Amino acid sequence: MSAREKLSENVKPLASRLRQGELLSTDCPSRKVLMHVTSRWGVLVLLVLLDGMHRFSELRRKVGGVSEKMLSQTLQLLEGDGFLQRKSLPVMPPHVEYTLTPLGREVAEHVSGLGEWIEVNLPRIMLARRQGTSKSASRMHASK
Amino acid sequence: MSAREKLSENVKPLASRLRQGELLSTDCPSRKVLMHVTSRWGVLVLLVLLDGMHRFSELRRKVGGVSEKMLSQTLQLLEGDGFLQRKSLPVMPPHVEYTLTPLGREVAEHVSGLGEWIEVNLPRIMLARRQGTSKSASRMHASK
Repeated sequence: MSAREKLSENVKPLASRLRQGELLSTDCPSRKVLMHVTSRWGVLVLLVLLDGMHRFSELRRKVGGVSEKMLSQTLQLLEGDGFLQRKSLPVMPPHVEYTLTPLGREVAEHVSGLGEWIEVNLPRIMLARRQGTSKSASRMHASK
Repeated sequence: MSAREKLSENVKPLASRLRQGELLSTDCPSRKVLMHVTSRWGVLVLLVLLDGMHRFSELRRKVGGVSEKMLSQTLQLLEGDGFLQRKSLPVMPPHVEYTLTPLGREVAEHVSGLGEWIEVNLPRIMLARRQGTSKSASRMHASK
């Protein structure tokens, strides 16, 4: 554990400042982490990796619609935050494996909870959407 | 309940298809919902509204860095999915209130769990980031 971390554990005010509502401030680094984890492809990569180690090509096949470039970028950001471990085997053709770290598994469980909720509740959401369409048309020009 | 929904409740294969892994297919409507809920501002609006009803101007003040235009757009999308209720009072100047619907509260609880995890674990993530910087520099040109 670093000196900085020991400090944040021992000094109450700093610790609670770090924990509370910082996502709402523009300059908190937690915002960047949130962006990586909830990005269009970040969510889906985390969901797939919850099932275990995957090669790059397997990830690309499972995450429908992702380009090679976007998948690379997404994996790099998630690895940078310490959520993924990347293992490059010294073979030809290149073979790279991605696995969740323990930290990554924790965050992926939360993302998965959200994803599952959306999948299970999609019929309720679609119903709400259809009901809302007529209402919103009637106040198209109403002020905020 | 629509005929389509009744069908999806009675016919097992369709029902399980709706529940399982559809976030991974490009054309599943759950992807759009996920995008609204995990958008840069969607997450933060849901977090704030978990504390109860807010006026537009209050939301704008609490969600650091959001523009009036982006906040309006975010609120419209979340309302469209049935997550928010918008109440416009007939007064001058215009007064509009936003509240989570029961459906919105459920999804916001998941988003909040994720947000809290990130806030609490930020020190671990920052540490992983610092440790990763040296490693990634050394394989800058490695193949995927």
